Amino acid sequence: MVMTIKKATWNDGPDLAFAINNRANAAIEKNGSSAVINAALGTLADDEGKLISLPSVYDRLDEMDRSRIASYAPIEGEKEYRRIVIDNLFGAYKPEGFISAIASPGGTGAIRSAIFSYLDRGDPLICHDYYWAPYRKICQEFERDFRTYKFFTDDYAFNIKALEEAICEGLRDADRIALLINSPANNPTGYSLSDDEWDKVIGILKEKAEDKSKKLTLIVDVAYLEFAGDGDEQRRFFKKFSLLPENLMVIVCFSMSKSHTAYGLRCGAAVGISQSEEIIKEFEASLSHSARCNWSNGTHVAQNILIDLEKEEYKKVYEKELEDLRAMLKRRADLFVLKARENKLTMIPYFGGFFTFIPTARAFEIAEELEKENIFTIPQAKGIRVAICGVSEKKIPQLVDRLAFYINEK
Amino acid sequence: MVMTIKKATWNDGPDLAFAINNRANAAIEKNGSSAVINAALGTLADDEGKLISLPSVYDRLDEMDRSRIASYAPIEGEKEYRRIVIDNLFGAYKPEGFISAIASPGGTGAIRSAIFSYLDRGDPLICHDYYWAPYRKICQEFERDFRTYKFFTDDYAFNIKALEEAICEGLRDADRIALLINSPANNPTGYSLSDDEWDKVIGILKEKAEDKSKKLTLIVDVAYLEFAGDGDEQRRFFKKFSLLPENLMVIVCFSMSKSHTAYGLRCGAAVGISQSEEIIKEFEASLSHSARCNWSNGTHVAQNILIDLEKEEYKKVYEKELEDLRAMLKRRADLFVLKARENKLTMIPYFGGFFTFIPTARAFEIAEELEKENIFTIPQAKGIRVAICGVSEKKIPQLVDRLAFYINEK
Repeated sequence: MVMTIKKATWNDGPDLAFAINNRANAAIEKNGSSAVINAALGTLADDEGKLISLPSVYDRLDEMDRSRIASYAPIEGEKEYRRIVIDNLFGAYKPEGFISAIASPGGTGAIRSAIFSYLDRGDPLICHDYYWAPYRKICQEFERDFRTYKFFTDDYAFNIKALEEAICEGLRDADRIALLINSPANNPTGYSLSDDEWDKVIGILKEKAEDKSKKLTLIVDVAYLEFAGDGDEQRRFFKKFSLLPENLMVIVCFSMSKSHTAYGLRCGAAVGISQSEEIIKEFEASLSHSARCNWSNGTHVAQNILIDLEKEEYKKVYEKELEDLRAMLKRRADLFVLKARENKLTMIPYFGGFFTFIPTARAFEIAEELEKENIFTIPQAKGIRVAICGVSEKKIPQLVDRLAFYINEK
Repeated sequence: MVMTIKKATWNDGPDLAFAINNRANAAIEKNGSSAVINAALGTLADDEGKLISLPSVYDRLDEMDRSRIASYAPIEGEKEYRRIVIDNLFGAYKPEGFISAIASPGGTGAIRSAIFSYLDRGDPLICHDYYWAPYRKICQEFERDFRTYKFFTDDYAFNIKALEEAICEGLRDADRIALLINSPANNPTGYSLSDDEWDKVIGILKEKAEDKSKKLTLIVDVAYLEFAGDGDEQRRFFKKFSLLPENLMVIVCFSMSKSHTAYGLRCGAAVGISQSEEIIKEFEASLSHSARCNWSNGTHVAQNILIDLEKEEYKKVYEKELEDLRAMLKRRADLFVLKARENKLTMIPYFGGFFTFIPTARAFEIAEELEKENIFTIPQAKGIRVAICGVSEKKIPQLVDRLAFYINEK
């Protein structure tokens, strides 16, 4: 007998990334961390394999009055937190229009609420065909129609034509569609859309929005924004979300997990952008309702950390620490790219983020072989995701060598 | 133009309890805490009105290795956390059968997932007619049919007959129903079902479960369990969940918010109980899927605090602190009950928890009058909820006096 309702009955087994990470940890326990390469889980580790927690972030936690930690946050999030999220997210490239942020548990909660509130059952969510699996799961949970288009052309350039076709098809089938883009520093590929590619995406959406019977929503997951380049250039595309038509809603999904090494604190926000104040008020009401009904309110301590980090003396320290992290990750990535070239290992163009991606149809088989050598990666339908965020620079040559060995085997 | 889908478009305005609490805080800012009685929000405050954070809980946070705070928890929760939740929740009264706990953000997340996975759209959720508003909101969010029965007879005894009728009616209309009971120490009334009343409830459910075409789920919200009496007597009813028929699922919703003064850390669990191992595996899969799709994983630091608190030397300190809290609350409640009797103020029988409840049809009007005197309470359709958890013993006589003044005015 089955007691759960049909739509909530699943046989997924354990989450793949978490399950492989558990095996990696067991291997480390057994063989010591120097004998294991854990390129499975998307958290930044130092060269000894220990998860990095930024001192500037956790010093704020240590100093915080306990009643600020213990107390409830407002359902929509602390007012100051919501303001700071918007300011820090967009920087010098804040779009023109009405903007509001609603707190969520990590980026996941923000993405979930964007999909829940702006697509009805059966409406298409259009996503690149390399994607973070929970996007699809969220659509399944709420019976939205998850569809993909070919992210890349054969030479790994952004496939704007495939995207346009998917949008056209979506709009033939439904009056509402949403487009989900995870950029910059896409998970799992490391790809970032260029400003020119963003212009094209927005051009297509604006053109389609000329039909006022259609409602379009652009959901942008920027979880890896802070690891997508130096300076502020990776934020330039935000400015393009200015002055869009009313029937084209934009929701940017912010997360503190990676930018603040605060994965386990579960803190993010959905940031809505519209030319219409009314549409933004409706956004706030809808996402607050979902908050109240799913997690009630956010992790107060994490919101308060972001607020406290705004003090100039702390902010400077945080920015320096983040810069160092970024540099560490870049050294690993640069070496990975160099060694891949030397080893004739094809990879998707890497622009930033926690992962590199090796396209192959034999990902599951190869990942299994790699596990036998205590190298842990995440196999996916289209290839192998390699979490360079967790691998010391020293181990990168060996990692690339073994990947190349199996990939180029036949 | 409306951009959100119809089912996710709301005009609720801000959450009433949080909005009133904001006004209370503004009044404190203006007039000082001695001039204000904040009986609005359900968090324990000391006699100076400051939110209480148990040292035993937050000392664990201070001592915790930062990478344990920063890292992701497993989607279903730390294994040890899940085991400890079950052990501590049931104590000596663990039901016989298969039992599993899945981590959630507070009790809300657990209740949400029980309703989402065990009721389909349109299926009835049957609840007492004094209830925490988010129960209804969750049903609206997911299009479940929220129904109430008269919680009390005219002399404020538990109305088992009304419950039975509601169950019969529910089962006439649908093949699946769920019953939600918030006991012991019900929010908002302070009522606890007696063991005898629980026997009757379970008797009815078992009888109805004889029809094997029906699926019944009992959801029990025990958020205030630790403030519902001395010793372990308030746990005795758990044992009654043993050996129930397979088509009668039980889900107990646990929360660390109140028991550990960890409101803002968002940590709880849904605890499923069944005679069938298969049904419990399905419970785990369904609730883990929802976790992944809504908040991804729980607040790791809170799960780790519960794990660390199990060390005997810490546990003893925690239990003593909890006992003191309970005693403080009991002094406030005892005085409230005494003064209510003296002032001929009718209240619902109080057995424990953070709230007393004064039945009246003029709740909104009276709460407004009270606010003018800097007394903040929560008006509801059936009366006034008084958060004695936030009011010092010293202020209780004045609080009761003013309540009685307006209630007995006409």
